[in-house]
Amino acid sequence: QTSSDPRPTKVQELYVYEINERDRCSPAYLRLSQKEINSLGDLVPFSNKLYSGDLQKRLGITAGLCILIQHEPEKKGDRYEASYSFYFGDYGHLSVQGPYLTYEDTWLAVTGGTGVFEGAYGKASLQQLVFPFKLFYTFYLQGIKDLPPELIFKPVPPSPAVEPSPAAKACEPHAVLPNFTK
Amino acid sequence: QTSSDPRPTKVQELYVYEINERDRCSPAYLRLSQKEINSLGDLVPFSNKLYSGDLQKRLGITAGLCILIQHEPEKKGDRYEASYSFYFGDYGHLSVQGPYLTYEDTWLAVTGGTGVFEGAYGKASLQQLVFPFKLFYTFYLQGIKDLPPELIFKPVPPSPAVEPSPAAKACEPHAVLPNFTK
Amino acid sequence: QTSSDPRPTKVQELYVYEINERDRCSPAYLRLSQKEINSLGDLVPFSNKLYSGDLQKRLGITAGLCILIQHEPEKKGDRYEASYSFYFGDYGHLSVQGPYLTYEDTWLAVTGGTGVFEGAYGKASLQQLVFPFKLFYTFYLQGIKDLPPELIFKPVPPSPAVEPSPAAKACEPHAVLPNFTK
Repeated sequence: QTSSDPRPTKVQELYVYEINERDRCSPAYLRLSQKEINSLGDLVPFSNKLYSGDLQKRLGITAGLCILIQHEPEKKGDRYEASYSFYFGDYGHLSVQGPYLTYEDTWLAVTGGTGVFEGAYGKASLQQLVFPFKLFYTFYLQGIKDLPPELIFKPVPPSPAVEPSPAAKACEPHAVLPNFTK
Repeated sequence: QTSSDPRPTKVQELYVYEINERDRCSPAYLRLSQKEINSLGDLVPFSNKLYSGDLQKRLGITAGLCILIQHEPEKKGDRYEASYSFYFGDYGHLSVQGPYLTYEDTWLAVTGGTGVFEGAYGKASLQQLVFPFKLFYTFYLQGIKDLPPELIFKPVPPSPAVEPSPAAKACEPHAVLPNFTK
Repeated sequence: QTSSDPRPTKVQELYVYEINERDRCSPAYLRLSQKEINSLGDLVPFSNKLYSGDLQKRLGITAGLCILIQHEPEKKGDRYEASYSFYFGDYGHLSVQGPYLTYEDTWLAVTGGTGVFEGAYGKASLQQLVFPFKLFYTFYLQGIKDLPPELIFKPVPPSPAVEPSPAAKACEPHAVLPNFTK
């Protein structure tokens, strides 16, 4: 992008699955409130695996922090404030900030990105499929050049039963992004 | 906003009060430095109530983290690095990052938003009225469509004595935003 | 910037050194994982000194949080997720979010800024020179007005041996930014 180009405002959709395969020691629930019920003061660093929306490719990881804001007994769940990034190997990363509710889908703000996501702004919908192990995200990205074909996925409709392809799970060379983030 | 619209650059002001009514167990001062004086290593998750600048409406909450950076004895206060969001019920949220000083007003960077704040960038002035219970913010927002009339408030001039209207404090139906964040 | 101005898209480079002179009790490695090896759950608040790319001026500080994501034995290092700000005294601040790897240079996303950095977006390259004491950053900033001449530095080529000028280290009046952040 040269200095004379206007910043693109076209909305581009990106579909990804975040899956906790319980092999990354994540999440680390830090009960710093020292209370039995989840309470303000508890912090939850986490990092899960990131798969393409068609579940055919391992892309990388997520990484960041959830801050417990309040336990909501009537909703049978918790409100977190989240700040984290999505890593796509050589393609770069996307950062987000916003709400994570264990009992309801939410919208996150895209705060920036690098690589093919340089200049990104917009939002992402967070849909929880299996708490807290399987989530589906739809990014609505603006401010970036056209996404490379390798990141344009026809999503598998989100459901609790979805699983990455065996090749993607096994990180076979044809089923990963170049230098996918481990 | 369709893909052919340019991103709005008009500056829109938004006035809000953040008030700690001491009923949310906030802030949670985590003395992880294990030092008697506030020191690097201490973390402070927090969540307060958010009221309109005219103090007639409960909007929602704030939620996030302050990181103690240094105690400044000559200023009789502390420097924090803050990362948090402002929640406005069905209208969405705004996220910020930047300095919080207990002894001086500061400017925060707006990092993004959702709902009516989708695409937001700009800055916010943080004015402390009663440490650490009452703060007044003026957002200077760009990148968004025109704010809805429900979010355009004639602010009560900030002073330590300001209080939300009884109806707003009581969250009466006419004195809250739709689905205001609790 | 009036409301009719388009947002600038010109890319402006800004060069800074971040140096830990071991006099700020930073970093505070919080071994909250309670494991011997660095593990998810560990948090690292930090704040270092910020110098101009030509090493002739003390600018301010950095301040923020690194979240340990994983120890990578084969890389002999660690992956962190970082969220922090760069402070430039009266000129304002820049906030970033993204990866910090102890074994490899990375790119961070610029999430916003204030003062002369109001409206900033873009990226920053993080080059580690002496772990974890000396780092060199090149910001590629968009969305802002022309940087003031006081922030345009001809960088000293980054190497492990670089040192700030004695005047900058001593914070002599001619070798600091106005109201440089301490």
